[in-house]
Parts: sequence; C-alpha cells; structure tokens
Amino acid sequence: MQKTNLAKEFPKISGHWKPRIAAELNGQHVKLVKFQGAFVFHHHEHEDEMFLVVKGRLRMDFQDSHEWIEAGEFIVVPRGVEHCPVADEECWVLLFEPASTLNTGNLVNEHTLTELERV
Amino acid sequence: MQKTNLAKEFPKISGHWKPRIAAELNGQHVKLVKFQGAFVFHHHEHEDEMFLVVKGRLRMDFQDSHEWIEAGEFIVVPRGVEHCPVADEECWVLLFEPASTLNTGNLVNEHTLTELERV
Repeated sequence: MQKTNLAKEFPKISGHWKPRIAAELNGQHVKLVKFQGAFVFHHHEHEDEMFLVVKGRLRMDFQDSHEWIEAGEFIVVPRGVEHCPVADEECWVLLFEPASTLNTGNLVNEHTLTELERV
Repeated sequence: MQKTNLAKEFPKISGHWKPRIAAELNGQHVKLVKFQGAFVFHHHEHEDEMFLVVKGRLRMDFQDSHEWIEAGEFIVVPRGVEHCPVADEECWVLLFEPASTLNTGNLVNEHTLTELERV
C-alpha cells in the first residue's frame, strides 16, 4: 500500500499518449498520461472515461462541440461518445477507467497500446 | 457532459466527513469530501478505496502504521484493510470508489450516511 505522488511520477514518463498504470482498484485503472498535439477521434463501446487535468490544459473535441479542461478540472466522457483529446502544449492527465479500456477505443492504429507500463 | 472544477466545488461543501457525489462512471463514484479531525477505524468488505488529496494533508492510520498523504498524492486502501483518516487541519479529498461504498464501511454509527448529495 504505497502512496503515489503525481509531481514525482509524471516527470518520469517519457513520450506522449502512452498511459502508465499508477493503481488498480475495483477492476478500474488509474493511469497517468502526457498529452501533446492531437490524438484521434474514437469512442469506447463499454467504458466511461474520466480525464482529470493535473497540469496544463486539454481541449476535448466532440463531434459538434469542444470543452476546455484546465488543471484542477475533470470531465467524464460516457461510453459511445466520439471524442478526441487535443493539447497545444504538454498536458498531464490522470485517467480513471476500467482495466479493460484500450487507449484508442474502437480503433486500432499506430497509437494503439495493448500492454501498458506501470509507474 | 459537464466538467467539474475542484477549486469551485469544494468551497460549496459544508461540513466534514460528508462525501458529495461529483460523477458516476462504470459503477464507480467520484466523491468530494472535506476531512477535519479524526474519523473512525473501519474497513470495506468488498470495496477498494482511493483517496486523492486536493488541498491540505491527510494522515491515514492503519492498525500498526500510518501514511501521510499530501496535496497531489493519492493512496489506495484495499478492501478488508482497517483504516482511519485523520486531518489536523481541513483537508480536501477526492474519493474514487464503487457506488455501493458506505462511508463507514462495516460500521453503522453517527457518521454513517446512506444518502449522499451531489455537487
């Protein structure tokens, strides 16, 4: 039972769009990920996904709208909703989602990661 | 699909040890709660519980040890583990746990809340 310090763990993460598992509980994962640039539109068939911004800011694009998520804010994207995270500058994000969640949801492409490292 | 701003929501919460539901996803709740003073030793039979400190600091007491959790840190207390949160000064905590979780776990006492308000 070890605590996790976000300010210490994020700097150890190299690369963007590569979530690391920080904790597992009740079949869910807490993941830490750095975003920079634009990801890709996708949805998750069976998983709701929470994005909590730890540092920087994130723009979550939806099909007909977008929402800015600043540090200290979070949003839950329900299953089935097409979304694309975008970060003009590097943004640190804590994700809560089921352990089964694939980062690219319904897509399999060059961003897809089937094995995640742990912090 | 609304974002939640932690710095705006916590000041609206009155009282201590009264979690408010901020979001629901995948059968889990994200709750916001203010701690001050000592709670009570308890455990959750079937639920792991995550405590992320947003402001202040929290001491998590276990039966033979304790862990200080500072702002920007989190800990997961696994199901079955006796624990008692203590905060000398007011501490703001984000909880992530199954929707079924009772705040006092295996105990029913004056702290027990069966109906939680939403932020």
